[in-house]
Amino acid sequence: MLVQKFGGTSVKSVARIKNVASIIARAAEEGPVVAVVSAMGDTTDYLMKLAHQVSGSPNRRELDALLATGEQISVALVAMALNESGTKAVSVTAGQLGITTESVHTSARIVDINTERIRRYLDDGNVVVAAGFQGTTPAGDTTTLGRGGSDTTAVALAVALGASACDIFTDVSGVYTADPNIVPTARLLKEVSYEEMLEMARVGAQVLHPRAVELARKHGIPVRVRNTFDPNHEGTILKGADEMEISRPVSGVTVDRDQARLAILKVPDRPGVAGEIFGALADQRVSVDMIIQAFHEGGLVNDISFTVKRSDLETARTALEEAASRTGAEHVLADEDVAKVSVVGAGLMDHPDVAARMFSALGREGINIKMISTSEIRISCVVSDEDAERAVRVVHDLFHLDEAHDEPDSDQD
Amino acid sequence: MLVQKFGGTSVKSVARIKNVASIIARAAEEGPVVAVVSAMGDTTDYLMKLAHQVSGSPNRRELDALLATGEQISVALVAMALNESGTKAVSVTAGQLGITTESVHTSARIVDINTERIRRYLDDGNVVVAAGFQGTTPAGDTTTLGRGGSDTTAVALAVALGASACDIFTDVSGVYTADPNIVPTARLLKEVSYEEMLEMARVGAQVLHPRAVELARKHGIPVRVRNTFDPNHEGTILKGADEMEISRPVSGVTVDRDQARLAILKVPDRPGVAGEIFGALADQRVSVDMIIQAFHEGGLVNDISFTVKRSDLETARTALEEAASRTGAEHVLADEDVAKVSVVGAGLMDHPDVAARMFSALGREGINIKMISTSEIRISCVVSDEDAERAVRVVHDLFHLDEAHDEPDSDQD
Repeated sequence: MLVQKFGGTSVKSVARIKNVASIIARAAEEGPVVAVVSAMGDTTDYLMKLAHQVSGSPNRRELDALLATGEQISVALVAMALNESGTKAVSVTAGQLGITTESVHTSARIVDINTERIRRYLDDGNVVVAAGFQGTTPAGDTTTLGRGGSDTTAVALAVALGASACDIFTDVSGVYTADPNIVPTARLLKEVSYEEMLEMARVGAQVLHPRAVELARKHGIPVRVRNTFDPNHEGTILKGADEMEISRPVSGVTVDRDQARLAILKVPDRPGVAGEIFGALADQRVSVDMIIQAFHEGGLVNDISFTVKRSDLETARTALEEAASRTGAEHVLADEDVAKVSVVGAGLMDHPDVAARMFSALGREGINIKMISTSEIRISCVVSDEDAERAVRVVHDLFHLDEAHDEPDSDQD
Repeated sequence: MLVQKFGGTSVKSVARIKNVASIIARAAEEGPVVAVVSAMGDTTDYLMKLAHQVSGSPNRRELDALLATGEQISVALVAMALNESGTKAVSVTAGQLGITTESVHTSARIVDINTERIRRYLDDGNVVVAAGFQGTTPAGDTTTLGRGGSDTTAVALAVALGASACDIFTDVSGVYTADPNIVPTARLLKEVSYEEMLEMARVGAQVLHPRAVELARKHGIPVRVRNTFDPNHEGTILKGADEMEISRPVSGVTVDRDQARLAILKVPDRPGVAGEIFGALADQRVSVDMIIQAFHEGGLVNDISFTVKRSDLETARTALEEAASRTGAEHVLADEDVAKVSVVGAGLMDHPDVAARMFSALGREGINIKMISTSEIRISCVVSDEDAERAVRVVHDLFHLDEAHDEPDSDQD
């Protein structure tokens, strides 16, 4: 059993839909296939635009009902193309998928999958073409999983069906050491660990949604990132860190330009104040990253800085200003021209010098580091947006990521 | 309780969607409202075109899944517009509507309606915005009711919910004595009987789908045809013939230009041969009208002529040619340049001279009548397509339909 997922650019036109159908049909000759498909090209953006023309803040239940039609169109067309070319196929959408989500609109989480209907279709010899990105509440309302949700649908179905692998087809050949548009010498990685991919996805690598990677890691589903337009290329395989044949301190450099920085200044230091501030942001479903707290005046007041997605900036700023007046903080600062440059590598924990070398190299190039955060396998620096691409190239060069080191225990610097 | 239905032209743009929302909101101030909405403008045609680009003969299950998205987009947008302007509203689509249909794709009939979910939404103070044209099979597959199916959805929901009326909003102010584009002096009818409307709808009046009229007649639901762009106009009301306050021999003249004529010549006259021929057409779901059988050679062979929708001509011709070779008929003739001109009036049965006067008037104008069929309240003539509009004007003049006769027992000629 194989689950395949095709993103929006892979089904952007009728010709591309036929290409996708031929990839699915070939896989279906080997065994049962469930193909998860995203909305065609810019459909979701078009529907979102329509919604905002109708309503300043579209009702979220209706927004989900609207957005879900994007995938419903593409799965019907892909199933048609498969039937046309002699491969039996049925499409399934929100209510038929068996994916139950939380009763939260526009970014619901999957709570349960009932595969009965899909299995029945598979048993009848069909390829199942499943609408990505959508599910239903227990009450039967359509929900969506948020942008990138089709990846999550694919991995979740692979888990629920006990698939042997989940192939994510996209418009690139796999995971690179950096964005080839920024670093022309970037190399394709044959394998990355779930953990590295998770960090990369969190800090800007667009290739795979972090929720999907986390789900694959948790259930040990092998995920392959492959190219729809070059389907014979073997792509990049994601696997457990303990199964990796390669060890390297730095696997890749990413940049996330969809970042803004907020600061709330001179917050009185009393118990519960941070909870109050971040609770107010969580209420607005704003995800917060890289929280830094600095002490002032003998610890009586604090400055708290953090980053948010740029699209969340206004919502976050409003919530933060309300929280500032409630908590007696002095004021709120916003900086939307920032980007986050990160190095990711499963071997970072064994190479404690990587962080210092990265900071020094950026400093030598005159790139000011505004914030720093690290995890076991990631080091992130917030820099000015205008410095971001140069920073990526500097770091890529520093760690010689353009040179092959896909051999066991190669020394890369 | 009121059911309102809005056709595709009524929701063609964002501005029109807002207009529809304001009509619904006004009605919702008076009591519970279910609004049935069609796909925006040309969406259905666009989706149909996409389907035919993907597949020469699109899989019917997938075609239904695809077409149903058209209404799913418009109901979500209408519900958004209502919420935006302060009227609580929820959209419901195929699986949520509670409309169960036959397991036949692209023109399924409704077999059952479960209004539980809709009633729950209404009880919670919502306007329910229901996707027209769609339902689900007992197994949960999406089906569509065929073109014009949204009218049927509206009347069927009005029946199931025990609504006091069903308002069909369209882009004209009601039912006219003839198409005003053909006859500039055509008049709006204040009331027509279900039976007249049924005949008019069957023979070319586009305003209301005949299945919907039949359903309204059967259950005695008052149906009002109204203008979305002039919502204060009272329009035309459909009611039972026995409730009509007006008696007139001819209520209107219609033309159906979506007609083609087929003939199968010299069919051996043996029992069951007509059943075999029309069975072959029924297998292809081709509806046949105006069957005329002529005898030859002492009754040993027959010529059988009939009309079909022009879009069904090729399917019908193929089926008929197969039937011809099976039954030993001589050959098949097709004529696609025909149109059907009809007069409709509940009073026709009391005025036996109407048919003769109509045939004479057409003859005087040099218009050749190719086929004739009549019902109790309708007389139809098949003429050359090029004569069709002129024939409508001749008949409209003949019966003085431009003069008001909406008074009890007026004498109109």
